[in-house]
Amino acid sequence: MSGQPKGWEAIRAEVLRRIRARDWAPGEAIPNEADLAAEFGCARATVNRALRDLAAAGVLERRRKAGTRVALHPVRKATLDIPVTRAEVEARGQSYSFRLLQSEMALPPVPVALKLGLAPGSRLLHLRTLHLADGKPFLHEDRWLNPAALPQPLPDFAAISANEWLVTHVAYTSGDIAFSAENASDAEAAILGLPKGTALFVTERSTWSEAQPITAVRLAHAPGYRLHTLV
Amino acid sequence: MSGQPKGWEAIRAEVLRRIRARDWAPGEAIPNEADLAAEFGCARATVNRALRDLAAAGVLERRRKAGTRVALHPVRKATLDIPVTRAEVEARGQSYSFRLLQSEMALPPVPVALKLGLAPGSRLLHLRTLHLADGKPFLHEDRWLNPAALPQPLPDFAAISANEWLVTHVAYTSGDIAFSAENASDAEAAILGLPKGTALFVTERSTWSEAQPITAVRLAHAPGYRLHTLV
Repeated sequence: MSGQPKGWEAIRAEVLRRIRARDWAPGEAIPNEADLAAEFGCARATVNRALRDLAAAGVLERRRKAGTRVALHPVRKATLDIPVTRAEVEARGQSYSFRLLQSEMALPPVPVALKLGLAPGSRLLHLRTLHLADGKPFLHEDRWLNPAALPQPLPDFAAISANEWLVTHVAYTSGDIAFSAENASDAEAAILGLPKGTALFVTERSTWSEAQPITAVRLAHAPGYRLHTLV
Repeated sequence: MSGQPKGWEAIRAEVLRRIRARDWAPGEAIPNEADLAAEFGCARATVNRALRDLAAAGVLERRRKAGTRVALHPVRKATLDIPVTRAEVEARGQSYSFRLLQSEMALPPVPVALKLGLAPGSRLLHLRTLHLADGKPFLHEDRWLNPAALPQPLPDFAAISANEWLVTHVAYTSGDIAFSAENASDAEAAILGLPKGTALFVTERSTWSEAQPITAVRLAHAPGYRLHTLV
């Protein structure tokens, strides 16, 4: 690391070399950016770019006060896109349609009520929708919606899917998402036209707008579904 | 939007309001940052912060030359942590162990060879490892390693898992990752101690270091596994 000016990739490579060689051990603080810039003979911004990249990759941990340390447990990160179902089907080059199977006010199951932090006895709108790709079952959506937190009047969910309506009509939201695998129940296998016990890829989301619970949804995907991204 | 200086959250809320109200329609370019800053009576950096947040949320699309547009298909993004298996088990408060089931040079199946871009007939190191949490099967790892691209000598993979060794000994990598659900084959059900056909959460990764293919791995998780994150 001497001679002509370095690009940030070269700085990144040298920092990684030191980490791999345990010159800088897991958990150890590394020199500050100004010192590294002086040592490497480059701009501090170049060091910063390299360290940010390594932090994004989970190799370094950056804390406001404690400075930058070598990660004890390197964690790679992957970013997933979560599109609306219609866009997801269309991106596969298939034609999208959906059928509303059920729409009624009902008492949600306890896990749903707890997840959304609702008072006991709160009734929600229960929607079940089958989404189709080229006319074949693509996913079964089982959704609980909190009408009290939604703009009124609600649309006809047989004409616009709740998924799509929420994205375009409810303010910026936060929430959580979980992915798992489940054997299809008899009821879900029948809806999706699958043998009993077929392995389903399941996505569960709960969504808030400001501090208001909006919706909890379970998406059960027909076989062949893969969630794919670059790392 | 007038009166005292605005925080970036207020700018974000106003931008979102205009998008929801279709004052700014999907696909349409929005005014530039300088004009918005003048209109809102705030610093341009404040506008920038708000727009970046909305772009990260998939509501806006920012292109270097085309400027900032309202997304045609809003895409939420989620970031996943991909820790090494030992750290994942320990984070659950369980004790980690593993057993190397198989280690031999072999011809990979065609899909693996294609995925890694290997010449036909290339032999790879085939490792199969059972990872345990509190002594119970946690996941079955089926891995193909390209020894030509690895630092030598290779370690004893019965003493350190390939997963952990790669993270600490192979330079910064890129690759892809996919998640799906599969019914356990009879062989995999036996390894994991599960009934035949149990739904397994499957993670598949392929990894490169610079332009060299390093490894392709399939992780089949025992039931109860959930990949969870905030959105």
